[in-house]
Amino acid sequence: MDDNNVRNEISQLGKYNLINKLTDDIEKQNDSTLVGVGDDAAVADFGGKQTVFASKLFLEHVHFDLSYFPLKHLGYKCAGIALTDILGMNAIPTQISVNLALSNRFSIEAVEEFMTGIRACCHNYKTDLAGLEINTSMTGMAISITAVGEAEADKIVCRRGAKENELICVSGDFGAAYTGYLLLEREKEIFLQTQVSQPNFEGYEYLLERQLKPEPRLDIVEGLRKNDILPTSMTVVSEGLATSLLHICHLAGLGCTIFENKTPIDQLTFDTLKSLKIVATTVALNGGEDYELLFTVRQSDYEKVKKIENVSVIGYMQEKNAGCNLITNDNKQIELRAQGFEHEEGN
Amino acid sequence: MDDNNVRNEISQLGKYNLINKLTDDIEKQNDSTLVGVGDDAAVADFGGKQTVFASKLFLEHVHFDLSYFPLKHLGYKCAGIALTDILGMNAIPTQISVNLALSNRFSIEAVEEFMTGIRACCHNYKTDLAGLEINTSMTGMAISITAVGEAEADKIVCRRGAKENELICVSGDFGAAYTGYLLLEREKEIFLQTQVSQPNFEGYEYLLERQLKPEPRLDIVEGLRKNDILPTSMTVVSEGLATSLLHICHLAGLGCTIFENKTPIDQLTFDTLKSLKIVATTVALNGGEDYELLFTVRQSDYEKVKKIENVSVIGYMQEKNAGCNLITNDNKQIELRAQGFEHEEGN
Repeated sequence: MDDNNVRNEISQLGKYNLINKLTDDIEKQNDSTLVGVGDDAAVADFGGKQTVFASKLFLEHVHFDLSYFPLKHLGYKCAGIALTDILGMNAIPTQISVNLALSNRFSIEAVEEFMTGIRACCHNYKTDLAGLEINTSMTGMAISITAVGEAEADKIVCRRGAKENELICVSGDFGAAYTGYLLLEREKEIFLQTQVSQPNFEGYEYLLERQLKPEPRLDIVEGLRKNDILPTSMTVVSEGLATSLLHICHLAGLGCTIFENKTPIDQLTFDTLKSLKIVATTVALNGGEDYELLFTVRQSDYEKVKKIENVSVIGYMQEKNAGCNLITNDNKQIELRAQGFEHEEGN
Repeated sequence: MDDNNVRNEISQLGKYNLINKLTDDIEKQNDSTLVGVGDDAAVADFGGKQTVFASKLFLEHVHFDLSYFPLKHLGYKCAGIALTDILGMNAIPTQISVNLALSNRFSIEAVEEFMTGIRACCHNYKTDLAGLEINTSMTGMAISITAVGEAEADKIVCRRGAKENELICVSGDFGAAYTGYLLLEREKEIFLQTQVSQPNFEGYEYLLERQLKPEPRLDIVEGLRKNDILPTSMTVVSEGLATSLLHICHLAGLGCTIFENKTPIDQLTFDTLKSLKIVATTVALNGGEDYELLFTVRQSDYEKVKKIENVSVIGYMQEKNAGCNLITNDNKQIELRAQGFEHEEGN
């Protein structure tokens, strides 16, 4: 687990000393952070703004596989996913607190590597690490991350709120993270069968990055503010675009139409899936782990929304009886289904 | 796991439906709770007050043993511990969000029982359940709880801040939770050896309650406000009174003297430990899981602090060179040591 073969046991240091070692050089990035790591709780002052908070729990063997997941990337990814939930409310993340549970197979160096990833993500998104606790685990690694953020009262956007004829927008592209996962799993299989690991991921970096190190879309929330757009509904796409969109429709009591040819899929994702004989659109709709934002805007915001980089308008909301449909490239209408969610239940 | 032998699989309902079933009758108890369960994040409006937040992670086999821990009590305890961290800042808890990871050995009824405990604790302490996520676990149960609360800027009390000659105060009594744990572990041993479980805990209810269902000390924080006392430092005693007190001393750069005959131990705790041939004071100082509050106040607050029920003044802060000492009942001076913490490291 350690690149440099140095291994110091956590028990040598003790828990408090380890937490100090991991956090004593933290410089705060937000004036709102009043009390950070090292007390019973963290304290923030948002000066009359609203407090937004969400927690994520990540378990080894369920949410990540350490056989191919570098700890630094894992830290970055977990922090990023937590921050993304704040962005999904159209709010700005400002603090995270982290709880780790580790067995004694983790050395101090391993924990430091993980925390390097957490802190890199915090740094990139100007978020303060305001709490850290380390527990014992008897089995796998467990990671719990709470993200806190702020927004003016009139900027908060919930999942519920889309209206008929409004435009359906998404950030980034879809299916890349799942494709990266397929590549990593394939290499793992080869390794398990041959005990030889010579992965050649050259040219596939984007797919691996999307799986191992997804970036929170702070740029989109900032872009919406800069262009004076207030979405009418908004959510994070974590279990597949279809699942998230059906959820938005359900809460709005509406249907929708989206277009296959407007659904953003990166060329590398498309080509890689083609070589694996998998239909790219299926993965884009149901792959999951995209951590992009899905939101609806008024038709009158169309010109403004086009100005935000990395946003695509993929369809529109419609009356409930018209259903939730995908118009394919050959102009067929297919009912959208939440395979991502069914897949997850089958775990 | 279910008393009534009804067992419905979580997979029958699906995750979203289960979350709805567990939360759809929630009525909010705090005006500050704006967005609760069912969105990407929760939203609170503290109207200019400060936001206090903390997270706890609880793992089966490490933090709890389901062989004797009723799920309802477990829910109550986990929620209570999270709320206690907010109280430990002299703040008022207002919301919690919960993340569960469950394997398929848990039925819908089991999750409902757990959530009944969570919600009972929320109800008793006027806290809103503002987030719930349910994940898959491949091994044991994992529970992550984030508590959020609020306080006026000038009410927040940190661990650091005690001054020389100030009074050391604690809420409640010590050692009972650990004694309850010893009783439960003894019954478990008997059961494993004989396969016969006929525990007779009559008369020991207080010790079991302290272990299985500790109560957050909201009454103490309210009592401090009512009596116009602002502690100079404050923390939650979770890993033993000695550990917490040494931490307060370390942060203050001071020593302390506490008195064995002033350290509150319930009579039942004392008698039960005596029958087990264990020195009660050792358990009171190092047992852990008391979840009581430890705080320091100015000498001039002595008369006021006496008015708060369930608070004991156990000693005073002193210069660093005088050390951190316990004066025993036979008037000997013993150096305080953090056995609770060393014990925990050995896990």
